Amino acid sequence: MATTAYIDAVRWNDDGLVPAIAQDWKTGRVLMQAWMNAEALRCTVDEERAVYWSRSRQSLWRKGEQSGNWQRLHDLRLDCDGDTLLLVVEQRGGIACHTGREHCFFRRLEGETWADVEPVIKDPEAIYGHE
Amino acid sequence: MATTAYIDAVRWNDDGLVPAIAQDWKTGRVLMQAWMNAEALRCTVDEERAVYWSRSRQSLWRKGEQSGNWQRLHDLRLDCDGDTLLLVVEQRGGIACHTGREHCFFRRLEGETWADVEPVIKDPEAIYGHE
Repeated sequence: MATTAYIDAVRWNDDGLVPAIAQDWKTGRVLMQAWMNAEALRCTVDEERAVYWSRSRQSLWRKGEQSGNWQRLHDLRLDCDGDTLLLVVEQRGGIACHTGREHCFFRRLEGETWADVEPVIKDPEAIYGHE
Repeated sequence: MATTAYIDAVRWNDDGLVPAIAQDWKTGRVLMQAWMNAEALRCTVDEERAVYWSRSRQSLWRKGEQSGNWQRLHDLRLDCDGDTLLLVVEQRGGIACHTGREHCFFRRLEGETWADVEPVIKDPEAIYGHE
């Protein structure tokens, strides 16, 4: 894989990864946080859609490949330290979370308890089918 | 330090840390991404302000301690996997970034170049003084 300057500018961690935050381009909602390696970043830019690195599967993860809920890239940002990416995306299907919710940050601290405060829009079984 | 259930619910990484994203409570802007350990999370909750863990200094980092640009906590979220925190905050001083910008994600990918696209609001020397 040919590297390019914008990829070399990223300060990858010891595992060759950086956190990548996805934010909805219209609502501003923070949808999710995942990880990217250099190849995921290159694919994201080339394909204009969010492609992450799945640490559990140790493979590229084209978000929405299975669910259809992919993320069209509108803007891509690198932070001051060069070690975090921010993707501003259009969330297809309106569901970013594998639990069937709009976004992954649906647990709010209330007192000393994490409370689920966001509705499930679509049953995950209907999204992914039976395993 | 006494642990509590909400701290135990977080899936800390091998270094005892998780990424923490700070978002402005009014504009929705993603201000920065930093890290927390269990103590930083407890201090954040107890003090109702963002307290991170500085990996470079290996110590608690009360955001704004030096600059005055601290972050009042309005809402705290945990994601579906339990391994990322989202802080919704009021950014005092309107400056989250140590470069004197409103937020840290001021470099936008344009073509194959990261371009600085956000103004410096206040000279860092005026914020932090001479080292």
